Amino acid sequence: MSHQAGGPDALSSLREQLRRFARERDWDQYHSPKNLAAALCVEAAELLEHFPWITDNESKALPADQLAEVQEEMADVLLYLVRLADKLDVDLFEAANNKIVLNAQKYPVDKARGNNRKYTDL
Amino acid sequence: MSHQAGGPDALSSLREQLRRFARERDWDQYHSPKNLAAALCVEAAELLEHFPWITDNESKALPADQLAEVQEEMADVLLYLVRLADKLDVDLFEAANNKIVLNAQKYPVDKARGNNRKYTDL
Amino acid sequence: MSHQAGGPDALSSLREQLRRFARERDWDQYHSPKNLAAALCVEAAELLEHFPWITDNESKALPADQLAEVQEEMADVLLYLVRLADKLDVDLFEAANNKIVLNAQKYPVDKARGNNRKYTDL
Amino acid sequence: MSHQAGGPDALSSLREQLRRFARERDWDQYHSPKNLAAALCVEAAELLEHFPWITDNESKALPADQLAEVQEEMADVLLYLVRLADKLDVDLFEAANNKIVLNAQKYPVDKARGNNRKYTDL
Repeated sequence: MSHQAGGPDALSSLREQLRRFARERDWDQYHSPKNLAAALCVEAAELLEHFPWITDNESKALPADQLAEVQEEMADVLLYLVRLADKLDVDLFEAANNKIVLNAQKYPVDKARGNNRKYTDL
Repeated sequence: MSHQAGGPDALSSLREQLRRFARERDWDQYHSPKNLAAALCVEAAELLEHFPWITDNESKALPADQLAEVQEEMADVLLYLVRLADKLDVDLFEAANNKIVLNAQKYPVDKARGNNRKYTDL
Repeated sequence: MSHQAGGPDALSSLREQLRRFARERDWDQYHSPKNLAAALCVEAAELLEHFPWITDNESKALPADQLAEVQEEMADVLLYLVRLADKLDVDLFEAANNKIVLNAQKYPVDKARGNNRKYTDL
Repeated sequence: MSHQAGGPDALSSLREQLRRFARERDWDQYHSPKNLAAALCVEAAELLEHFPWITDNESKALPADQLAEVQEEMADVLLYLVRLADKLDVDLFEAANNKIVLNAQKYPVDKARGNNRKYTDL
C-alpha cells in the first residue's frame, strides 16, 4: 500500500529504502554528492548503451528482453537521483515543477513550435 | 494541491505537463526513446560537470548558487526520465522498487559491508 | 613543424603541452585519474549535446558553426584522454591497436556482417 | 613499423583500420556522426565506471587488472573519436592544438593559478 506506484509516499519510500540499504552496508562513506553524481552519469550511459545502433523506430518497439534491461537502467538512474537529492536535501518534484515553468519561458510556443533549435538560437 | 511535492499525483502530473509541453511545440516527432536517452545522458553529465574539480567534502557543502544550478540539472534528469518512461510505458516507481530488491540480492549485507567492490568481485 | 598534425610527435607534443599547462596553473593537485575520468565524460556529453534532436542525415552535414563547436568538444575529449593516459602511464596508440585486434575477434566478419547486435548476442 | 606507437602514421593507421573494420562488416550504415557521438559517450562512461567509489589516491595506483580494463576503455574512447573525426573530416591533432591555445586564453596563469573555478568565474 505504502509502496503503491506513484503513490503519496512513493518517493520518500525510495529515499528511506536507500538510506537503510546504505546504512546496513556502511556505504555512506562512499556516497558523497560528487561520487553519486558520477555514478548517476554512468547509469545514464548504461541506459543509452541500448540505443546508438538502432533506429528511432526500433527504439519505439524494443523487444521484451531489451525493454526489461532498459527498465532496470532507468531504475538505477532514478535511485541514484533520489539518493543524491537526499544527500543535497533537494526536493526533486518541486525542482522538476520549477524547471517546467522555466522551460516554458525559454521555449515559448510560438517560437519553438516544430523546430529543434536550442533556446539560445530561437 | 495536485502538484504537491511527492504527493499522489506528483509523477503523473509531471508526465502530463511534459506531454502537453511537447504537444504544444509539436516536439513529439523528436522524442523517440533513442533521442530521449541521449538527452538524458547529456543532462546527467551537465549535473556531473559541477563536481570533477571539487573534493568530496566540498560537494557536501555547495554554495547556494552552485546548489541552485545542481538542482536544475537534477530536475532536467528527472524530466527526461519521466518523459522516456512515458514513451516506453515504464512504471518508474515499480521499476525502482524492483531494482532495490535485486540490488539487495547482488550486495548481501555480510559481503558488501564496508567495501566498495562491484558485486561480481564480492 | 613539431606540431605537424598527426606527425611523429603529435601525441607527445600534446602531452607535454598539457603538462606545462597544468604545472603553470598548479593544477596537478586536481588531476587525479578519478577526476580526469569524470571531466572526460562531461566533455563526451558536451559533444553528444549537439546530436540528440537532429537526424542521422543532418548529423552528416552539420552547418559550419555547429561543426566548429563539435570540433572543439572533440578536442576537449582528446585532451583529457591524453592527460589521463599520461597520469596512468598508458600508451594510447598501443592500447587502441590492441583493442582493434580484440574487436576483430569479438566481431568476426561472417557473424557481424550487416547486423548491429552486441557481440554477446551474435 | 607503420604502427609504431605515436609514430607518424599512428592516427591515420587507426583511421584506416577502422574504415576497413566497418567496411568488412557493412557497418557504415550505422556510423552516422549522431550514433558515433552516442557510442563515444557510452565508452567514456564505461571508463568512468571504474572510479566513482574509489579515492583520488586509489585512482593513482590501480591494481593491474583494473588498469588493464581502464586501458581498454580508453582505447574505445580513442577509437570512436578517430572514427567520428573521419566521418566529420576533422583533424583531431589540429583541433587539439587549437583548443590548447584557446584554453590558455580562457585560463590565464595569473588568475587560474591554484584554483579550480570555471573560467567564467575567474
